[in-house]
Amino acid sequence: MKIQKNDNWFTEVAEEVGCAFSLKTSCLLHQETSAYQNIEIFQTQHFGNLMVLDGFIMLSARDNFIYHEMMSHPALFSHPSPRHVVIVGGGDCGTLQQVAKHTCVEKITQIEIDERVTRIAEKYFPELCIANEDTRVTFEFRDAIEWMQYAQENSVDVIIVDSTDPIGPAEGLFKKDFYAHCYTALSAQGILIQQSESPLAHWQSITQPMHKEMRAAEFIQTKTLFFPLPVYPTGWWSATMAAKNDIHLVRDIEVKQCAFETKYYNYDIHLAAFAMPNYLQ
Amino acid sequence: MKIQKNDNWFTEVAEEVGCAFSLKTSCLLHQETSAYQNIEIFQTQHFGNLMVLDGFIMLSARDNFIYHEMMSHPALFSHPSPRHVVIVGGGDCGTLQQVAKHTCVEKITQIEIDERVTRIAEKYFPELCIANEDTRVTFEFRDAIEWMQYAQENSVDVIIVDSTDPIGPAEGLFKKDFYAHCYTALSAQGILIQQSESPLAHWQSITQPMHKEMRAAEFIQTKTLFFPLPVYPTGWWSATMAAKNDIHLVRDIEVKQCAFETKYYNYDIHLAAFAMPNYLQ
Repeated sequence: MKIQKNDNWFTEVAEEVGCAFSLKTSCLLHQETSAYQNIEIFQTQHFGNLMVLDGFIMLSARDNFIYHEMMSHPALFSHPSPRHVVIVGGGDCGTLQQVAKHTCVEKITQIEIDERVTRIAEKYFPELCIANEDTRVTFEFRDAIEWMQYAQENSVDVIIVDSTDPIGPAEGLFKKDFYAHCYTALSAQGILIQQSESPLAHWQSITQPMHKEMRAAEFIQTKTLFFPLPVYPTGWWSATMAAKNDIHLVRDIEVKQCAFETKYYNYDIHLAAFAMPNYLQ
Repeated sequence: MKIQKNDNWFTEVAEEVGCAFSLKTSCLLHQETSAYQNIEIFQTQHFGNLMVLDGFIMLSARDNFIYHEMMSHPALFSHPSPRHVVIVGGGDCGTLQQVAKHTCVEKITQIEIDERVTRIAEKYFPELCIANEDTRVTFEFRDAIEWMQYAQENSVDVIIVDSTDPIGPAEGLFKKDFYAHCYTALSAQGILIQQSESPLAHWQSITQPMHKEMRAAEFIQTKTLFFPLPVYPTGWWSATMAAKNDIHLVRDIEVKQCAFETKYYNYDIHLAAFAMPNYLQ
């Protein structure tokens, strides 16, 4: 992976799949090296603000709604009654904002290792941070792997792992040991959902092994859902859900009469996201 | 739109949306200027062979199955009994190959303006051209707009418009006059399907106007379907279907017991493709 910057283009190269995605930028709004990573914020010409961590695009203002809605609503509407939601990573607060839309949720705990990501998001993505002051929200700026190890048994309904790719600090978030601690923390109907990379580029190398590790940690059902994501490699992304029990049917009446606004997600999209292309079966 | 070639990368810039997609290439296998366009074939490192027309990526060996299956099977399985299928454009023959899998189809007419595209596809994408010798297939290397104007009334069951973008020679394929000629050529249950660009980048500028033009040409129902397409701008693409009658329910039993192999398409994918994100409704 290398970064090319020239002529006001930011480029992320996905060497493993031999493709690259570029966005035309207007300027670099912010750059700093936190204790954990290099953080850059670009203003782009057509995708709004862009956050880049260690050279990898995290999100753009234009298309992050797809990712954040699909990381939250399918899992929350699949659980019969989610009250305590834990977000692992999610420093930009876009997932948190979606979770907070669910009035049945009483408590949201976000465990992000790098506080600077959240502080910078508050400045450059204020539209994603409107739930940060919600009284239901607790921020823990620390290592989620450790936090999960000591989490109270049976205390969490939904865990959302909204992390970087499984290299470097996030690698442990894709392993059986972490999933086993999630399993213990989750209540009887508990659901874990985690971003699981590109169905075209990473199915064999990342997504399939995730299913295996999740099942090794005793989750009895795992399912992948699919969605477009223009700023991520190949423009096509996935999230993988693991359940302690059968994954429940979506709470269809509540989704159809959804009490809050979404830009991408709806009942049809919920069902559609689980459709599995033949070559992945 | 400009093309950058350096360090063995082919880049297509989508200026209108301020993004670019690049593929790492090994070599340029072929280049020629036909009577209609500049045709290039690259060997890429991870996407197989790549066809580029006037600087726009047409297809890669790696991901074209998604496009070609979604341009053919949803329409063909939505028609109660497709016997004569007309393909407009489709010079690489990938759509033709999918259409030929349907044994109920008795006649396939492909009207591609540039014979060189087909001849080059036969050399560099032989896996897409295996149906070219099928006795049901007729190639017409001429202008499809003119062909459609003089097509016999009520003689075609499904028209698939597998063309380049609506600029230059293909522009007329996105207009009411052409759709009206398609309408006349189609039988009572006739269906037209056409590639309709990116739901993120071109919805207002291209896809919505297509619906309007199709309905102005008397089609009573129009529906867009969505699918990933890594090598096209934003990695997310669409096709729009127009029907003379209500679009029929998919022939579900036949799809579920599908007599031929597909890599992307199946019954769940068929239904899922029509799920419409909220922001496009």
